[in-house]
Amino acid sequence: MGEENCTLTRIYYFSAAHRLHNDKFSDKKNKKIFGKCNNPKGHGHDYYVELSVKGAISPDTGMIINIEDLDGVAFKIIDKLDHKRLDVEIEYFTKVNASGENIAKYLWKRFIDEIPSPAFLFHIRLWETSENFFDYKE
Amino acid sequence: MGEENCTLTRIYYFSAAHRLHNDKFSDKKNKKIFGKCNNPKGHGHDYYVELSVKGAISPDTGMIINIEDLDGVAFKIIDKLDHKRLDVEIEYFTKVNASGENIAKYLWKRFIDEIPSPAFLFHIRLWETSENFFDYKE
Amino acid sequence: MGEENCTLTRIYYFSAAHRLHNDKFSDKKNKKIFGKCNNPKGHGHDYYVELSVKGAISPDTGMIINIEDLDGVAFKIIDKLDHKRLDVEIEYFTKVNASGENIAKYLWKRFIDEIPSPAFLFHIRLWETSENFFDYKE
Amino acid sequence: MGEENCTLTRIYYFSAAHRLHNDKFSDKKNKKIFGKCNNPKGHGHDYYVELSVKGAISPDTGMIINIEDLDGVAFKIIDKLDHKRLDVEIEYFTKVNASGENIAKYLWKRFIDEIPSPAFLFHIRLWETSENFFDYKE
Amino acid sequence: MGEENCTLTRIYYFSAAHRLHNDKFSDKKNKKIFGKCNNPKGHGHDYYVELSVKGAISPDTGMIINIEDLDGVAFKIIDKLDHKRLDVEIEYFTKVNASGENIAKYLWKRFIDEIPSPAFLFHIRLWETSENFFDYKE
Amino acid sequence: MGEENCTLTRIYYFSAAHRLHNDKFSDKKNKKIFGKCNNPKGHGHDYYVELSVKGAISPDTGMIINIEDLDGVAFKIIDKLDHKRLDVEIEYFTKVNASGENIAKYLWKRFIDEIPSPAFLFHIRLWETSENFFDYKE
Repeated sequence: MGEENCTLTRIYYFSAAHRLHNDKFSDKKNKKIFGKCNNPKGHGHDYYVELSVKGAISPDTGMIINIEDLDGVAFKIIDKLDHKRLDVEIEYFTKVNASGENIAKYLWKRFIDEIPSPAFLFHIRLWETSENFFDYKE
Repeated sequence: MGEENCTLTRIYYFSAAHRLHNDKFSDKKNKKIFGKCNNPKGHGHDYYVELSVKGAISPDTGMIINIEDLDGVAFKIIDKLDHKRLDVEIEYFTKVNASGENIAKYLWKRFIDEIPSPAFLFHIRLWETSENFFDYKE
Repeated sequence: MGEENCTLTRIYYFSAAHRLHNDKFSDKKNKKIFGKCNNPKGHGHDYYVELSVKGAISPDTGMIINIEDLDGVAFKIIDKLDHKRLDVEIEYFTKVNASGENIAKYLWKRFIDEIPSPAFLFHIRLWETSENFFDYKE
Repeated sequence: MGEENCTLTRIYYFSAAHRLHNDKFSDKKNKKIFGKCNNPKGHGHDYYVELSVKGAISPDTGMIINIEDLDGVAFKIIDKLDHKRLDVEIEYFTKVNASGENIAKYLWKRFIDEIPSPAFLFHIRLWETSENFFDYKE
Repeated sequence: MGEENCTLTRIYYFSAAHRLHNDKFSDKKNKKIFGKCNNPKGHGHDYYVELSVKGAISPDTGMIINIEDLDGVAFKIIDKLDHKRLDVEIEYFTKVNASGENIAKYLWKRFIDEIPSPAFLFHIRLWETSENFFDYKE
Repeated sequence: MGEENCTLTRIYYFSAAHRLHNDKFSDKKNKKIFGKCNNPKGHGHDYYVELSVKGAISPDTGMIINIEDLDGVAFKIIDKLDHKRLDVEIEYFTKVNASGENIAKYLWKRFIDEIPSPAFLFHIRLWETSENFFDYKE
């Protein structure tokens, strides 16, 4: 497969609201487990996504991937989440909690088939606050 | 009034959702002016507050104010906004938009009478995203 | 003039190369004063601009200025510097050194008449590296 | 005095230990006021100093001050604090608490007469942790 | 073992003083090897710990671990170091130097048996200054 | 090989200009692929290098490597790039594009034989802007 020692990581941003909740739990249990994140009206975060792709460095361009091409793919996927109430407006998160873990997983599932080859998706990091982040990699 | 050359700034955090909207505007005008921020289901941010207080440095303690005392005041005010949908759950923001400008002003109005003297409120900075902040000072 | 207690600051980015040099100085003096920054082939920086505007908060929108309008103005001014060799390609910097001080001043001169009223330009901060910044305000 | 609209700020670093304590207080009062910071063995911080100088921009160099000259002054003053136990090894802090407030004031007093004219000291900001900073300006 | 593709990282903080020294070395050798860090009175740092835990994402909660539970564990371990002179007050560091390397290792040893299963400790990163960090993982 | 569970990472800085270009491409193709980065006069960045070395923790010093020794090696390698126009002044980049990918690879090739054993080079991360970084590891 040639030389694949390098990754490019680019940072994207979206803003979203969410509520953590499980219909199968009692109100009391929801409150106990999710605390303030269970507030029915929601709360929100500035999410920063570190999208890492790997691949051989092209001898012609010096690049793994053209950043403009990567941005094109990324904006389409991230814009769907931007300025949304995730657990209400994104079908995926009507079925599983819009936790940091699941948003990172969702991004992995969306990006995995979209990175133009020969580059490929390597890693997703999602910052939820400046004190919290989630890494996802299959 | 003695020597008041020093300020202490401490950074607090809250997470909240909001929607920007004006009932007096048509749907079209709301969309035009507020863009994605007009999404009815809301979106959210990680807000960072830089709270600055000024005052003479006490010769006994070397402090303008005891940080524990400042934290006591700050947590009470900031916890009211934390993990809330601001335009729905905070009465103040049912009347004016929960824009960064107005949240900064709201914080000023709440803090102005609460800083234990001889320290006094000097400045509020509110970060809404890592590319945007608001300063408020009367 | 009403209530003007609030500023909005937004952070913009550009990448540029420059060389510090004074034709009136000898080579030796240029080297002594500007050191590595006098390298004829140039070097470069990631410049971050904190653009602050002040104004009354509109009771209708909660805003000092619509960020989309501010971005429209800012991108036009900043794109002229982006990915350029400043001392060669920007006429202003063929006459004065493209130092951090002068770039901050240049930005002030460009922005001062472009901010849509009733908002007005309040302050420019230019980061040249993570250990250096310049503030400009007339 | 000519055009003095610009400041240059440069960030310096030192690491130091300190203990907050007042001999005139009882042990109990020291503990109550200074909390964990009263630990007799000391604790420590990574201090970041934002040193701001103001002055006219030289038409010959485009600079307020040559950064190398500023560094020369700054390293001499900051090295005296670096890797020290402040309240024990720096005479100034054997008399007043080595609080953030007083360290900022100490730096002001040291720098005020040392900035080569026509530049002059404008502002000191001292970060004690990433959630705390002190501004000093006479 | 199910799906373990995700890690949660949370950032904790403590402030401490230390001195690097080896009793078996001569004074001269201690000074040569440890430089300013050998100062007998100590110096200090703001330490930031990135604690990463891995585990399956619970289908009920969307979480690897409840952050409140993680905080409970972490605060107990980190509070023991907070506002201490490490090489004097923490028994572990009376025997080995309180270097960044050894503090990271110490944290690994403390956390390894304390993360509530099915989550497990994955990685420790310790920032000693903003230009230095240590990673530890067995 | 004993215990090699720890890495030390230290962050270095350089400023450089570059132009992305391929002589074998037409002007139109160069412009299409490299966009603004193809500007003949160049542009520039503040590059931050995270240099990670791994190795056993010495029982005598608590260190993987003495940071002064690492700095000695690093400054020699990084100073060659500092304040340079990379694609013109550094022979390596007259043959391959001075892309982030290739600069990271170049640093790996330079550092691989220079880290004093028993420590060894583990990882290179190169930040080109605050939204972009490259990892390299063979």
